[in-house]
Amino acid sequence: MQNNEVGFDSTKMKRKNSEDEVEVEEEEEKRENQQWSVERVFEDQEVPLWRNQLTIRAFVVSFVLSILFSFIVMKLNLTTGIIPSLNVSAGLLGFFFLKIWTTFLGKFGPLSQPFTRQENTVIQTCVVASSGIAFSGGFGSYLFGMSETIAKQSAEDSDYHKNPSLSWMIGFLFVVSFLGLFSVVPLRKVMIIDFKLTYPSGTATAHLINSFHTPAGAKLAKKQVKTLGKFFSFSFLWGFFQWFYTAGDDCGFAYFPTFGLKAYQNKFYFDFSATYVGVGMICPHIVNISVLLGGILSWGLMWPLIDTRKGHWYSAALESTNIHGLQGYKVFIAIAIILGDGLYNFFKVLSRTLAALFFQLRSRGASSGLPVVDHPSPKSLKLSYDDERRTRLFIKDQIPTWFAIAGYVTIAAISTATLPHIFHQLKWYYILVIYIFAPTLAFCNAYGCGLTDWSLASTYGKLAIFTIGAWAGASHGGVLAGLAACGVMMNIVSTASDLTQDFKTGYLTLSSPRSMFVSQVIGTAMGCIISPCVFWLFYKAFDDLGHPGSEYPSPNAVIYRNMAILGVQGFSALPKNCLLLCYVFFGLAIAINLIKDSSGKKWSRFIPLPMAMAIPFYLGPYFAIDMAMGSLILFVWQKIDRRKADNFGPAVASGLICGDGIWTLPSSILALAGIKPPICMKFLSRGSNSRVDKFLESLG
Amino acid sequence: MQNNEVGFDSTKMKRKNSEDEVEVEEEEEKRENQQWSVERVFEDQEVPLWRNQLTIRAFVVSFVLSILFSFIVMKLNLTTGIIPSLNVSAGLLGFFFLKIWTTFLGKFGPLSQPFTRQENTVIQTCVVASSGIAFSGGFGSYLFGMSETIAKQSAEDSDYHKNPSLSWMIGFLFVVSFLGLFSVVPLRKVMIIDFKLTYPSGTATAHLINSFHTPAGAKLAKKQVKTLGKFFSFSFLWGFFQWFYTAGDDCGFAYFPTFGLKAYQNKFYFDFSATYVGVGMICPHIVNISVLLGGILSWGLMWPLIDTRKGHWYSAALESTNIHGLQGYKVFIAIAIILGDGLYNFFKVLSRTLAALFFQLRSRGASSGLPVVDHPSPKSLKLSYDDERRTRLFIKDQIPTWFAIAGYVTIAAISTATLPHIFHQLKWYYILVIYIFAPTLAFCNAYGCGLTDWSLASTYGKLAIFTIGAWAGASHGGVLAGLAACGVMMNIVSTASDLTQDFKTGYLTLSSPRSMFVSQVIGTAMGCIISPCVFWLFYKAFDDLGHPGSEYPSPNAVIYRNMAILGVQGFSALPKNCLLLCYVFFGLAIAINLIKDSSGKKWSRFIPLPMAMAIPFYLGPYFAIDMAMGSLILFVWQKIDRRKADNFGPAVASGLICGDGIWTLPSSILALAGIKPPICMKFLSRGSNSRVDKFLESLG
Repeated sequence: MQNNEVGFDSTKMKRKNSEDEVEVEEEEEKRENQQWSVERVFEDQEVPLWRNQLTIRAFVVSFVLSILFSFIVMKLNLTTGIIPSLNVSAGLLGFFFLKIWTTFLGKFGPLSQPFTRQENTVIQTCVVASSGIAFSGGFGSYLFGMSETIAKQSAEDSDYHKNPSLSWMIGFLFVVSFLGLFSVVPLRKVMIIDFKLTYPSGTATAHLINSFHTPAGAKLAKKQVKTLGKFFSFSFLWGFFQWFYTAGDDCGFAYFPTFGLKAYQNKFYFDFSATYVGVGMICPHIVNISVLLGGILSWGLMWPLIDTRKGHWYSAALESTNIHGLQGYKVFIAIAIILGDGLYNFFKVLSRTLAALFFQLRSRGASSGLPVVDHPSPKSLKLSYDDERRTRLFIKDQIPTWFAIAGYVTIAAISTATLPHIFHQLKWYYILVIYIFAPTLAFCNAYGCGLTDWSLASTYGKLAIFTIGAWAGASHGGVLAGLAACGVMMNIVSTASDLTQDFKTGYLTLSSPRSMFVSQVIGTAMGCIISPCVFWLFYKAFDDLGHPGSEYPSPNAVIYRNMAILGVQGFSALPKNCLLLCYVFFGLAIAINLIKDSSGKKWSRFIPLPMAMAIPFYLGPYFAIDMAMGSLILFVWQKIDRRKADNFGPAVASGLICGDGIWTLPSSILALAGIKPPICMKFLSRGSNSRVDKFLESLG
Repeated sequence: MQNNEVGFDSTKMKRKNSEDEVEVEEEEEKRENQQWSVERVFEDQEVPLWRNQLTIRAFVVSFVLSILFSFIVMKLNLTTGIIPSLNVSAGLLGFFFLKIWTTFLGKFGPLSQPFTRQENTVIQTCVVASSGIAFSGGFGSYLFGMSETIAKQSAEDSDYHKNPSLSWMIGFLFVVSFLGLFSVVPLRKVMIIDFKLTYPSGTATAHLINSFHTPAGAKLAKKQVKTLGKFFSFSFLWGFFQWFYTAGDDCGFAYFPTFGLKAYQNKFYFDFSATYVGVGMICPHIVNISVLLGGILSWGLMWPLIDTRKGHWYSAALESTNIHGLQGYKVFIAIAIILGDGLYNFFKVLSRTLAALFFQLRSRGASSGLPVVDHPSPKSLKLSYDDERRTRLFIKDQIPTWFAIAGYVTIAAISTATLPHIFHQLKWYYILVIYIFAPTLAFCNAYGCGLTDWSLASTYGKLAIFTIGAWAGASHGGVLAGLAACGVMMNIVSTASDLTQDFKTGYLTLSSPRSMFVSQVIGTAMGCIISPCVFWLFYKAFDDLGHPGSEYPSPNAVIYRNMAILGVQGFSALPKNCLLLCYVFFGLAIAINLIKDSSGKKWSRFIPLPMAMAIPFYLGPYFAIDMAMGSLILFVWQKIDRRKADNFGPAVASGLICGDGIWTLPSSILALAGIKPPICMKFLSRGSNSRVDKFLESLG
């Protein structure tokens, strides 16, 4: 899964991630230069034709994995919106499944085709594309933000809503999700070969796949898969076990007042979620610390303080979930931080993109084909054996430019004609305007992503919310128009950067650009069907989906809708002093970023990330405690055995995430079938416990 | 701790244990012969004079450890009555504490005396003697069985009771606990040097201590201590954490319906007790399986079946804890099995003892000093270097026989004069009779224990219950007389076999018999004060001590009292068909033992132990599940890494037991101070949960 899925809430986290990956990559490159060439190892392996890279078995495996990852991403969407990079698990599991398949078939006779790294790359690409839709489809953000459930929780305008339905969701995704692919196809050579952009995630994935297909790598991969399998089972069984104790509200381990009832009321507790412990193990330590810090700042300090102003700043009669009360502060201060951070980074990446592009184009005139990215390494002055071989194969299979343009125009035309029928508030000319600007933005995003590993898909989406929302205006249902426009925009720019990442992975694994493109198209099509179905299952199975405090509060849906309202109506919805606080935190988010970027690397890594800090502002710090736990486990493990922790940490984390994620499948089926858990594990204070005991005694 | 503390309930378990130990010992001996002599390693170390072996620092450490182990043994007494061998932890912790002490003092200048293995043996002996009193003092059996709490639960005769009080308990222990020591002193040379009895526990302890004081052993010991420390802290903190959730009855982890509410009602659940997981790790697998099997047989099958006969076999109006109802079947069938097993083994050990003694004495005439134990090994035909050196040192320090006899007579006189003042029902002539027979029985027990590692202390105690109880008769408070006589008898025979074990340990570590004797005397004196105080803390801190279903049900107290009633009054107290069932199970216990002993080693190790099966009959299988869990953990660990599991398994188990055991100290202090936990973790069925939710809502 590439970084654009992490989008909105965790773009910032990815940045740190990408730095790590860049380091890894640099090390890898160093080793490569000094000791051996990757492609020399694979020299005697024939590269299959692009058609042969696309095997049916690969797509069968992809389909199974797509369902798995769609569940995981959907669960993450609907619980906190933090989605860590699942690249490693996708790569590992893809390798694992096909290896079993080929080993099994190999017992009955020689295989028609051996399992190659190109095939592995095809699976990876397909799965990432498919589960990417689970994020960019906005089931936890703009799309669900249109629903009545969320509309009732937001400031105004609950008249304008559009409830989810399987048919329109699938239709919507099909008409918007393929545009991004066509928009970047013509520029792939420029970005991959001429500019030599790094694409840290794509590169890391390629290294992983390459390593799997060397003998030593396969051995390590086998061990990693075993570890993943163990923790997968543990996490799945743990989810199953927890289920038995959840009869009724506030029952079960997810409501365990680990630090006492007082702390629990302020959402400080460990909720025993294997998923977020795993997420904490994958995210860099600074992200976990930031989230925890944000949680302590907001729920430990600010909300209790604002609560004391009840009756002065806002009516004391309001319910706790009313957006005009304390809830308003929570939502809008979070939005302020997210916007401040997003804006800062938008301009930062844009300026870096433009500057790099400028130098690139200028120097291109002088000596063609040479990259002038931040640190041009001397070795790139002459092509290495690896580069030469990779370039040759990358250029061999072409995708004609006319095909890309024709594809884009055709789909844009269909889309422009169809979308107004789905969203009446979204006029055809809004869509046309988006489609005119989209290719440029898609290129910008793909380029910026190659440079920093940082997809701004959700930022572009927010841009669409505000511009189209304001254009449509409050009286014409601008809220819905804005949210729909956000979806169109996000899908384009997100798939664009996805595909370019995949091209890079393909380049480094000698996979054909054509097979990458086809795999991405097939994966996207799968995603357009699987993701809405998975969401539909959640939507039907859990009645309280989207309600604050429930199992699936879907926090981003509320935040997106309120952003749309803000864009359409201005600040009228905000309670007293909220606007002031929003300004302060907006400024703080920018200031922290400035300090972080201007201080040296030594100190900057200790400065928290505003985006990460904002997430618990609305949700509460409980998941931050899970993540901190994951971080702590990894930290201790690294202290004990650095090598082992680095090799198996991601496998353990993936196992925890995948097991718990896939448990949601049977759990939602149980809920649909009306099978309820038998026991409630309840937590009562000593006082109410003795009252309850007397009550139960009186019942006999 | 030697095996006599395990007494009553787990003598059988120790037997298997002892077999393991014998194997270990044999291996050790083999290695010893082939490769090196233990005493050659220690050759250049001077053996301190016996007075110098008894250092003040050793007794300070012993005192601290005695308190720790008294808490652990008391907790085990009062929860299930299963007390595993704590030898290893006592040895490890003794080594650890004194090592810290000497290392610390060594920093300020040269030590007046280095830490020797003799000193280590002194600590071990003292701690074992002291915490032994916590078992043989009968706080979980005969002594507490006299109390009003237990009297109310038993069949009849609740008029005769004697509630615990610090003063008479200490007095009682002081007048009965020293007799055993004097009774075996004169025979130590015969048993250790002439008969060369094995004393597996004592031998294993000696090997442990010897290994600690070699350089490689010290390193392993350090690692083991570290592991013990880790699990000690974990277990302590886990106990502390659990405490917070125990506001009210049936609250907290100890009432977690792990397998559902239906299973919970039949006491099938995992109660998260670190202690019993640890106990399961120390006990042989067959013991754990027997306990589990017994639990399934009784609570899974028999009690539910008998419950369907309610109204026919016994009055349906009776409360569940009434001994004339279902409770009666539970108690008396358990007693039947225990008596059947006990009787079988009494005659078995007695016949082996007598046979061996007979051959011993006969062959002694022929060639003095040669052992004719089961398998006389050829190597013992000429004295090895080790044996020679050990024998020389063992004989060097004598304890005059007149001293032993004078001591015995003096204390017996004081005791005969004092005891009737404590228990009015216990006439002076009962005591005199006991004291006349006691030395013989003490010798029998010490000899049998040397042969099989199996102390029959509790069996001798039961003998006293029945004989003295019948003699005193129902009208004269025979129940109390029987229980008191049991105490007198148990203390004598138990300390006698203890001391002989220590002589063996001393023999193998070149510790003087004098220092062993003095250490045992001091340890016993400590125990006579510490144990009643610890019990008193429990008694005052936990109101429901001794009530069935509570945290400390003290199952053996009820069983002992009912045995005394049975002895005095006959079978009149039993509900319908109970006697028949008792006969069946009495017979079964003997039959299983017969089959076990007559089948080959290959099969006999799969045949369960009746004594172990009887324990859950009264208590329920919940602790059996803990123990099975411990067994499973150890089994898996052994499969993964046999060597590591063998080296560190006992340390992990000891850590779990000690940490949870010592947590009872602060927990009882909290209870005494009236500080109650804040939260109740409650488990409700879905139905009652929704009613409770409505009730809580109505409260607002």
